[in-house]
Amino acid sequence: MTTSDTRPFCAAADWGTTSFRLWLLGRDGTVLGERRSREGMQSAAKPGFHAVLEQHLLALKAADDLPVIVCGMAGSRQGWVEAPYVDAPASFDAIAGGAIRVPDITRDVRILPGVAQRPGVAQKATGADGPSLGPDVIRGEETQVMGLGLAAGTLLCLPGTHSKWISVGDRRIDGFSTFMTGELFQLLSTQSILRHTLDPDADVMAESASFVAGVEAGHAAPALILNRLFSLRADGLFGSRSPAKALARLSGMLLGVEIAGAAMLHPERSVVLAASGPLFDLYRTALGAAGWTVDVADADAAVRKGLLAGALQCFASA
Amino acid sequence: MTTSDTRPFCAAADWGTTSFRLWLLGRDGTVLGERRSREGMQSAAKPGFHAVLEQHLLALKAADDLPVIVCGMAGSRQGWVEAPYVDAPASFDAIAGGAIRVPDITRDVRILPGVAQRPGVAQKATGADGPSLGPDVIRGEETQVMGLGLAAGTLLCLPGTHSKWISVGDRRIDGFSTFMTGELFQLLSTQSILRHTLDPDADVMAESASFVAGVEAGHAAPALILNRLFSLRADGLFGSRSPAKALARLSGMLLGVEIAGAAMLHPERSVVLAASGPLFDLYRTALGAAGWTVDVADADAAVRKGLLAGALQCFASA
Repeated sequence: MTTSDTRPFCAAADWGTTSFRLWLLGRDGTVLGERRSREGMQSAAKPGFHAVLEQHLLALKAADDLPVIVCGMAGSRQGWVEAPYVDAPASFDAIAGGAIRVPDITRDVRILPGVAQRPGVAQKATGADGPSLGPDVIRGEETQVMGLGLAAGTLLCLPGTHSKWISVGDRRIDGFSTFMTGELFQLLSTQSILRHTLDPDADVMAESASFVAGVEAGHAAPALILNRLFSLRADGLFGSRSPAKALARLSGMLLGVEIAGAAMLHPERSVVLAASGPLFDLYRTALGAAGWTVDVADADAAVRKGLLAGALQCFASA
Repeated sequence: MTTSDTRPFCAAADWGTTSFRLWLLGRDGTVLGERRSREGMQSAAKPGFHAVLEQHLLALKAADDLPVIVCGMAGSRQGWVEAPYVDAPASFDAIAGGAIRVPDITRDVRILPGVAQRPGVAQKATGADGPSLGPDVIRGEETQVMGLGLAAGTLLCLPGTHSKWISVGDRRIDGFSTFMTGELFQLLSTQSILRHTLDPDADVMAESASFVAGVEAGHAAPALILNRLFSLRADGLFGSRSPAKALARLSGMLLGVEIAGAAMLHPERSVVLAASGPLFDLYRTALGAAGWTVDVADADAAVRKGLLAGALQCFASA
């Protein structure tokens, strides 16, 4: 008889738009094998999702009958098999219960659904006079939330190209808001007239004073953002700010507007930040400059733990 | 002896980034000839600005010694001859006095300067507690202001890819603010993830209810703009808004944020709108929805009249 540490309970895949990550997991969460590749939804469609998955399972010497749990964009309409959104507020049980079994293959592969916040049912988050959470979707982030083990009442921030702010209840996602900050930063710094004024390859955190000044400006007067963007261009014409500092100020201004908006939608006023790399530093600095209390969660382990929680529910009889 | 109506006093060129427009003008402003082309600053650089100008003057049978007044991007650093910015607040006399004579040619050609609002000298527009006008530039718009004959205390709005809000004093430009609204609308509707949700060729004013709802949303809560943009995407996934309505709502939201920002920077609270075509309809509708009083000025004649005013000062001894 082997110990639980050495016998895989399931395989778990975080299958996003541009990346694929697979683990073999013991029932207690022990990692028994891992694979990473760039075969995300966009590139896996051509060889086929099933072939990509089996190739990586083979490389890990996984048994033919090992069940697999999947989250992320592989479950979108453009993915492998659509796992329709469950509606917010969504309990963790409802999310795991919404997993779709991939048809017509012998292996038991379940894809977890995303969560939809539909128009009309989005609740008032901050009292009767505050703005409502808007129509919104998450897919993949719900699994991170399931893995983080956060207390009810926690506000979670997950930075990214589209950052997600998620109000977490008792084993439940109460509501959330997505901000297009990262995508807008990319567009403005590379495609707009500002590209003549900025160094798009500069290290924003190396110009932290400019970054923080931008956060404070964006946070204090979000309505001015469309004007303050052009001021970056004018400053460039006047030679009064370096291209690296201009990039840092742009990043800060957009983050300041995001944080001001998140404060209108989520009443918690303190936040758990789950990120890694440069985005972690940017958000932690910006949130601090805007006066928020910030706690930190382990972003790397979150999705794996959430996949295990989903697998334990889906494969309970295994 | 001919009448003043038939003898040209000068030629006047509005020479922008992508367009060229030339008039022969009598001393009283009578239009004695007109040429339009796409030979803006970007395309005129190759054949040469002088050659382009002379070719159009020849087509109008202008005398070899007829003086020419020019405004617009032809006077920028990347243009024909740089006419350095004059600083705001800038009197009309200072602007005309800042015209630069093109060297090394026999014809008397003067290029009017733009106006710069430099960092540090930008005044508080709305009292000690309000935000300051930011670093900013205009080039070409100052000449429109000179031609409009507005009363002191007027706030002028000139829509465009980069819209300009200009506080006008007594024959003087007191200050101004540029908003990158039009450029951001183009980027978001054609380059961002929203392009999957929008019809970029839809007629925004044909969906005026969606446009006005967007204006009201953007104006009421500018801080939420980065989130409400993503809601357009979610609405598209839910099938709850048509691609044409989504484009109209996007346009309205951005304009609502612009108007909220302009209200913070300019104390006038009523505005003279000088525009033509679709942008005129959009701005008039949006300003009305945001509760502004709107008067209308003739945008087409403005730059021509401003060029004449500049010419009368530059060529007074002619």
